[in-house]
Amino acid sequence: MQEVVLRDGLQSERAFVPTAQKIALADALSRTGIAKLEVTSFVSPKAIPNLADAEDVLRGITRVPGVLYTVLVPNMRGAERALNCGASIDEWNLVMSVSESHNLMNLRMTREQSFTQLAAVVALARSSPTPVAINVSLSCCFGCPVEGEVPPAEVHRWAARFLELDGVGGVSLCDTTGMAFPSQVQTICNEHLRRWPDAETTLHFHNTRGLGLANALAGLAAGIDRFDASLGGLGGCPFAPGATGNICTEDLVHLLELEGCATGVDLPALLEVSRQLAATVGHDTPGQVVKAGQRLDTKPAPDWLEGVRARALAKGGD
Amino acid sequence: MQEVVLRDGLQSERAFVPTAQKIALADALSRTGIAKLEVTSFVSPKAIPNLADAEDVLRGITRVPGVLYTVLVPNMRGAERALNCGASIDEWNLVMSVSESHNLMNLRMTREQSFTQLAAVVALARSSPTPVAINVSLSCCFGCPVEGEVPPAEVHRWAARFLELDGVGGVSLCDTTGMAFPSQVQTICNEHLRRWPDAETTLHFHNTRGLGLANALAGLAAGIDRFDASLGGLGGCPFAPGATGNICTEDLVHLLELEGCATGVDLPALLEVSRQLAATVGHDTPGQVVKAGQRLDTKPAPDWLEGVRARALAKGGD
Repeated sequence: MQEVVLRDGLQSERAFVPTAQKIALADALSRTGIAKLEVTSFVSPKAIPNLADAEDVLRGITRVPGVLYTVLVPNMRGAERALNCGASIDEWNLVMSVSESHNLMNLRMTREQSFTQLAAVVALARSSPTPVAINVSLSCCFGCPVEGEVPPAEVHRWAARFLELDGVGGVSLCDTTGMAFPSQVQTICNEHLRRWPDAETTLHFHNTRGLGLANALAGLAAGIDRFDASLGGLGGCPFAPGATGNICTEDLVHLLELEGCATGVDLPALLEVSRQLAATVGHDTPGQVVKAGQRLDTKPAPDWLEGVRARALAKGGD
Repeated sequence: MQEVVLRDGLQSERAFVPTAQKIALADALSRTGIAKLEVTSFVSPKAIPNLADAEDVLRGITRVPGVLYTVLVPNMRGAERALNCGASIDEWNLVMSVSESHNLMNLRMTREQSFTQLAAVVALARSSPTPVAINVSLSCCFGCPVEGEVPPAEVHRWAARFLELDGVGGVSLCDTTGMAFPSQVQTICNEHLRRWPDAETTLHFHNTRGLGLANALAGLAAGIDRFDASLGGLGGCPFAPGATGNICTEDLVHLLELEGCATGVDLPALLEVSRQLAATVGHDTPGQVVKAGQRLDTKPAPDWLEGVRARALAKGGD
């Protein structure tokens, strides 16, 4: 389970979340058993003011052994900032879009320009005195809000270009604007895994059209068990009109555990952190299990039930 | 596609929806290509005031050929009312719970008492001068909010008792409080279909914990293709604490069509009716496709995109 609320979740929040609250959220999350925590993004503070305190958050958190701390590195300027943070970052998460239009909208570069720049970022990461893993998040793998369908061949082509670079250990196939559907997910994941059985592959879904959890199950059926998710279902890409939240971490954990897939996450602890999140961001979140409780969180029978039962039995017919 | 917004949707609305608006909603829905429309319930007006106008709604609607009009008949009093409405009803939808506690809470009877009464209702329906189909909705097939797990054997036992009655053509396996999960759905549906391959089986899910659409896909994989759903995702059982809406009709249609399963529903028309629903009930609804648009409802590229592209290309590297 890879928690992205501090980056994908907070980046679209209008009100600035104080640094101390981000640190408290990161520390609380890292104690719930999640495998990876995306702490922040080295994006331009002008583009995303809520993440302007990236270095301060990284400096402030208390590292929990076993948790992998990752940071979004969108460009060379971000890579230089990441390098300065040294050993406090375990993984750089690079990003570009497999859709030309979305890449231009989001990163103001052609895909080729992004690739050239990110290849240089990979080289810089490998020059780091402290070891750093590299993941590449590929946006719009299941559709582009401007171009519509994205040919799966484009997904596989860009995944290959990055995975063939020395130092890149994994890719995330991202459904940036919630256009994926289950059979499509399965088809694309099957082919991706056929080509890259040993790469670390992550799925990143948004719940824009209600299909996030169904898509996660489709990916799991294909054989992928790494998922980005956001506490409370917070999130959305500010450059993708209409995109609503990421899939909700606690709802996904609840589902996966029911399906017999051990996540290692302490769900009651995660739900407690989720309850605090609404206060932190100042509004309700889309998460459902935090409101409804877990499946077997039964309610006590109402006081009057035994009276009803006694009267029913007195009438006979049972 | 079996639309239940007029019954399961409206029964939990606090504000009374005027009869004329219910009729307009029923008529609009029945022109979208849905297979079945649950028009109302002959429940006690004291228990559910919003459905007190059942007869008036039935009298007021304009029947569309090919649409099956069904009405919830919870008890003998309801059956007598249904009988009086004669040919304006194609199907009586009977209801009881496979959980003893939930049946006592909801219907104030033991399950045996409910069965005895509903068997008499079936006999009454068969005495009707106009032919009427009979379906039985079994509540809490995937869990009970008070008892917790419900043994699948109970589901199969009650399904059998009803399907063995002359005149009962189908059952609905209902997840009344959103406790179902996909592998459970598949297990229960597989066994049900093994026993009753020729019965008309419907699945009825609530999205309480975000799993409604994933559960529908699991049921579809098992071989069941009849689904209750509620426009806008409205709904919930007033006697099931924490239960939120039914699965959303338009979101389910959107999913099924993407999965290559023809629903016969005109989705743009359905979305138009859904947009009107929020005004009718006076609040936002949980449906997501009505807000986000269909998967390939792309946005026009922003005006500035071509400028960005030109500047990016001028920089080279492409």
